[in-house]
Amino acid sequence: MPSWVVSEDVLSQGVSVRDARREDLPRIVALYRTDELTRKHKGAADAEVEPGYYAVFDAIERDHRNRLLVAEAGGVIAGSFQLTLVPDMQPDGRDVAIVENVIVDAAARGRGIGSAMMRWAVDEARRHGCSQVKLTSSRTRVGAHRFYERLGFEPTHVGFKILL
Amino acid sequence: MPSWVVSEDVLSQGVSVRDARREDLPRIVALYRTDELTRKHKGAADAEVEPGYYAVFDAIERDHRNRLLVAEAGGVIAGSFQLTLVPDMQPDGRDVAIVENVIVDAAARGRGIGSAMMRWAVDEARRHGCSQVKLTSSRTRVGAHRFYERLGFEPTHVGFKILL
Repeated sequence: MPSWVVSEDVLSQGVSVRDARREDLPRIVALYRTDELTRKHKGAADAEVEPGYYAVFDAIERDHRNRLLVAEAGGVIAGSFQLTLVPDMQPDGRDVAIVENVIVDAAARGRGIGSAMMRWAVDEARRHGCSQVKLTSSRTRVGAHRFYERLGFEPTHVGFKILL
Repeated sequence: MPSWVVSEDVLSQGVSVRDARREDLPRIVALYRTDELTRKHKGAADAEVEPGYYAVFDAIERDHRNRLLVAEAGGVIAGSFQLTLVPDMQPDGRDVAIVENVIVDAAARGRGIGSAMMRWAVDEARRHGCSQVKLTSSRTRVGAHRFYERLGFEPTHVGFKILL
């Protein structure tokens, strides 16, 4: 069994969230690549991490308004997300927290990893004094929508994008 | 007629987008306050700008990943938005551009101010090498949704939030 497999035993040990380290990138990128929507864009899974990922990691690490987080269960990375704090005049001048790139190991879903990450994000945003936590989820991810609503998120907006 | 009224004459002179200056804040805040959804949260329009707005303006100005923009027509500010560049590993390591706090003077709507701002945002994001431009619009703003779709934005996501 590869060292990164999340076993039931490991999950029972609880989940902790911490900032990602550079050496976590191969694992994080592997998680992205096993994601069904991402896979459509990226082709089949690759073992290698292109240098571009390290450049983005460095950009996030340098920026005090961006953090890449991982959820660990018994020393195994079972999920990841990014937290961005945006200075925002509306509604009241407090920062807005944006959660992006939420990914949970497909083998570990439904076991509280995602909830632990989102609760951590909400707590951290509150601690920082943010007015709200925002995120978008692809229209097709109905299961994810139910997950966010169970955590208290409300589907108040339509998310638009234009690809460049 | 107050100096900030956007006349038809002024609009025929074309729209330019530039970074907001500190002295633009009273006008920008007045635009926010005339917005129907915002007004619900903030109560009736106020003439004064609380110090908090200046603090956020300074935070945006200090941050190289955030810009507050205004659209000017003949020297009159007719709209505003914020542009945030987020380092993002997905889908391909290029920054993602987020547009927020889009507001157009109610008296100047339907005259190309919003289009000029969004085209500027997309051009700027492209120039910067972003993979995409993202924004969210309240579910209730059906007219705004049609506006974004006319500009080429696709409603691919559901936007969730949790107020703190």
